[in-house]
Amino acid sequence: MSDDVKFLLTERDIPSHWTNLLPDLPGDPVPPLHPGTMQPVGPDDLAALFPMALIQQEVSPEPEVEIPEAVRDAYRLWRPTPLYRARRLEQALNTPARIYYKYEGTSPAGSHKPNTAVAQAYENAQAGIRKLATETGAGQWGSALAFACSLFGLECEVFMVGSSYDQKPYRRSMMETWGATTHRSPSDLTNAGRGQAEHKTGSLGIAISEAVEVAAQSPDTNYSLGSVLNHVLLHQTVIGQEAILQMELAGDRPDVVIGCVGGGSNFAGLTFPFIRQVLRGEAAMRFVAAEPAACPTLTRGVYRYDFGDTAGLTPLMPMYTLGHDFVPPPVHAGGLRYHGDAPMVCALVKEGVVEARAYRQNESFAAAIQFARAEGIIPGPEPAHAIRAVVEEAEAAREAGDQRVILFGLSGHGHFDLSAYDAYLAGSLEDLEFSEADMAAALARLPETPAIA
Amino acid sequence: MSDDVKFLLTERDIPSHWTNLLPDLPGDPVPPLHPGTMQPVGPDDLAALFPMALIQQEVSPEPEVEIPEAVRDAYRLWRPTPLYRARRLEQALNTPARIYYKYEGTSPAGSHKPNTAVAQAYENAQAGIRKLATETGAGQWGSALAFACSLFGLECEVFMVGSSYDQKPYRRSMMETWGATTHRSPSDLTNAGRGQAEHKTGSLGIAISEAVEVAAQSPDTNYSLGSVLNHVLLHQTVIGQEAILQMELAGDRPDVVIGCVGGGSNFAGLTFPFIRQVLRGEAAMRFVAAEPAACPTLTRGVYRYDFGDTAGLTPLMPMYTLGHDFVPPPVHAGGLRYHGDAPMVCALVKEGVVEARAYRQNESFAAAIQFARAEGIIPGPEPAHAIRAVVEEAEAAREAGDQRVILFGLSGHGHFDLSAYDAYLAGSLEDLEFSEADMAAALARLPETPAIA
Repeated sequence: MSDDVKFLLTERDIPSHWTNLLPDLPGDPVPPLHPGTMQPVGPDDLAALFPMALIQQEVSPEPEVEIPEAVRDAYRLWRPTPLYRARRLEQALNTPARIYYKYEGTSPAGSHKPNTAVAQAYENAQAGIRKLATETGAGQWGSALAFACSLFGLECEVFMVGSSYDQKPYRRSMMETWGATTHRSPSDLTNAGRGQAEHKTGSLGIAISEAVEVAAQSPDTNYSLGSVLNHVLLHQTVIGQEAILQMELAGDRPDVVIGCVGGGSNFAGLTFPFIRQVLRGEAAMRFVAAEPAACPTLTRGVYRYDFGDTAGLTPLMPMYTLGHDFVPPPVHAGGLRYHGDAPMVCALVKEGVVEARAYRQNESFAAAIQFARAEGIIPGPEPAHAIRAVVEEAEAAREAGDQRVILFGLSGHGHFDLSAYDAYLAGSLEDLEFSEADMAAALARLPETPAIA
Repeated sequence: MSDDVKFLLTERDIPSHWTNLLPDLPGDPVPPLHPGTMQPVGPDDLAALFPMALIQQEVSPEPEVEIPEAVRDAYRLWRPTPLYRARRLEQALNTPARIYYKYEGTSPAGSHKPNTAVAQAYENAQAGIRKLATETGAGQWGSALAFACSLFGLECEVFMVGSSYDQKPYRRSMMETWGATTHRSPSDLTNAGRGQAEHKTGSLGIAISEAVEVAAQSPDTNYSLGSVLNHVLLHQTVIGQEAILQMELAGDRPDVVIGCVGGGSNFAGLTFPFIRQVLRGEAAMRFVAAEPAACPTLTRGVYRYDFGDTAGLTPLMPMYTLGHDFVPPPVHAGGLRYHGDAPMVCALVKEGVVEARAYRQNESFAAAIQFARAEGIIPGPEPAHAIRAVVEEAEAAREAGDQRVILFGLSGHGHFDLSAYDAYLAGSLEDLEFSEADMAAALARLPETPAIA
C-alpha cells in the first residue's frame, strides 16, 4: 500500500472511451415512453431537443463509447482529477478504515459537471446548433455549461432555480463571466414559468420545463440536461475509470463506494466503472447512494413511470419519484433537489446493487466541517451528504474493528455555498422536513402510465 | 518541446528546502531599523511577535533552508501545484509566444498563501504559542492562516480590511468554517483601530497595526504576517522550485517571468529560484512585477526607510513606499493594496533585476475575462494584473514576430471576487485614481530616517 496522500495521473491517462453500463444492467431494458402514445421513445422524438450524436449515445448498446478528440482535448484543462487518501480525516475519526476520495472540484466550474458539458457543447456545435438552453439547481451545471459553450463558441441561456439564485448570486456572475445569460426560475419568459409563479423558490422540475420550452421553439437552439439521462451519466464515467487506475496506484481496493445523488450523474460517474466489475463478477464491493432527507427520492419514492419535469414536457421515465410536481424544500444542496433520479441509477437500487440512505442537512454540514478542518477542502453541500455516509461507515469500521476501505466522490467545492456554512455555524440552519402530506398530494397527481415490467 | 498542456509532479517532488535569496542579493545587506534607536533590528526585538525559528529564517545567511517534515506533510494536501501551457489563450491572442502559468489556486484557501501559513503555524505551535493574530486584505491570507491553524491546533484571530470585508463576505465564512474569528478593520478592539476610525474602507497598514497590537499584549499570542518579510518570501519559493522542474518537463525555458506584487510574496515565490539562476550567471531572463495603478508602489514610490504599518509599530524597512499612512483606493485587488513592498523585491527593482509595471483595474479585468473564456479558470483580481502584463508581452511578441516564452504566476482563483467581475461586466467598475495630492501629503508625513546606504 502506498504512503502517499495524492494519486495523480497524466493527461495521457484520460480515458479514451466512456463506460456505457446500459448493456450490463440486470433485467430487460425499460425504455422511456412517449406521453402521448405510451410507446417507447425513439430517436426522432428527441431530435427537437438533442443532436443525433447524443441521441445515439443515449440508446447505445455498445459497452464502450469513444470520446471525441476535441472533448479529450478540452478535458486536458483539468483532467485527470486527483484522488486523495484522507489520512487526517481518518485520524480525526479515530477509525481503522482507510478513506479515499476522488475530487472533481479542480474543474473550472468547481464540480464534475464540465465532464458532460464539454461533450454536449461539442456535439451541438458539430451539429450546427447556435445556442443551448438549460436549467441549473445549485448553479454547478449552469456554470459548467457556460464554460463549455465558451470553449465551443455557443451561446448559453440558463434558467436558475429561484432558491439557489437567491442563495448563490456569485454563481450567476460566474456564468456571465463565461458569457452566458441567466434568468431566475420560475421566470415570466415561458409558459411553464408563468404557470408556476406561485412556487417562488422554484425547483429543478420547473426550470427544466422552462429551458425545454425555449429550446423547442427555435431550430437553432437545443436543450442540454446536466444529469438523469443515459448519455449524461455516460460522460461522467471518466471519473470512475480514473479512480480505478488511482486505487491501483494506491495499492488498495474499495470495499464500499459512496456518492451523493441528485439526478444521479455524479454517483454514476464514480460508481458505474466499479459496478461493471461487480456485475461481471470481477470484484465484490458495496455501493451507497446518499440523498437529502428533505428530498428522499430513492429511499421513499415510488418506482414507476413519471415525467422528468414539472410541466410534463419530457418523456415518461422509469424511476423512483416523489411526483413530478413535488417542489422540494429549499435545502442548500440545490443539486440534490430533484423529484426523480436517473433511470439507470434507479434500476440499480431496485435490483439491490446500490443501497440508498437519506441524511439531514445539519448532520451533513457537521460532517463537511469536520472534513474541511482535517483535509482543507470545503465541500459543496451535495457531497456533504456523501461525507455523512463516510463518517457512518468509518464509525461502523471502528466498532467492528475492521479495516474497510471507503472510496467516496467529492463532487465539488463549496466556495459558492458559504452562506449555508454561515447559517450552520450560527445554528440557524433548518433541518427542512419531507412532508408526507405534500408527497401524498403529488403522488395523487401522477400521470396514468403503464406499470414497469 | 512537450505537447502537453499540464505538467504535474508527484508529492516526492515537493522541495526539501526553501530558496533563501538573501545571500545572492546584489550590494550590501540593508537591515531593518529599530524606530527608537535607528540601529539594525536584532532577533530579540522581534521575539515579542515571532517564534525564534522564524526569526532565524528571517536573517538566515544560508542559501537553502530545510523544510520541516511536518510542513512538507501539510504541503502534501495540495502541493506540488500544476503548471499549465495556456494553448487556448495563445490562440485567442494570435501570438507566436508560448505562455505557461503556475497555478496556486488549487490550495485549500485558493491561493499561494498556505505555503507560508502552514510553515508559520507549525513553528508557532512548536514554540508553545496558543493563538495567532493577523490582518488580511482580500481575505486570502486570513483564510490561509485559518486553515493552517486548524491543522496545528492553534486559535486564529483575523483583522480584515474593511473594503474587502464588505466586498467578500464569504471569505469571512470560509475563515470561520476553519474555526477562526474575524473582525472588520478598523475595529474598536484596538487603539490602532480606534485611531483610524475615519478611514472606513481600511487598509492593510491599519489592519497590521491592529493585529500587532493584539499580539504584543499577550505572551501566548503571536503575530503572523502574510507577506513582505524575508521568511514569508522564503516559504513561497516552493512555487518557483517546482516551476523550474515543470518547465524542464515542458522542454522549454522562460524568457520572461511575470507576477503580481502586493507585499511581494507571490512574486518572490515564483521568481526567486529563477532570479538565483540569473544572478549566478546560469541563465538569462527578464522579470516583470505587475502592480495596480491605484497603488503604484514600485513604479512611483520613493526608495527609503518607512514603517510597515500605519500606526508605526513595526521596524523601519528599506523599501519603495507611498508613505506608511497612505490609504489606497478600494480596488478589488485587495491583496495589492499595500503602501510598501517586500525589501528583497524592492532591492531587486532598485538594482534593475526586476522591471515594475502598473496596470489599471479595468484593463486587468478585461485580460482576466479573456483568460477565463480561453482557459476556464477565473483568476483573482490580483493575478489579473499579471495577466494584463502577459497580454502585453504576447502582443509584443506578435508584433516582433518572436517566439518568446512567458511564464506567469496565477496566484489564486477569483471565486470570492465575482462581485468585481459583475461590476466589470456591468460597466460600473471604476478605474480608481492614484492621487498625487494624497501621496504628497503622505510623503510629507514620513518618519525621519537615515538614508539607505
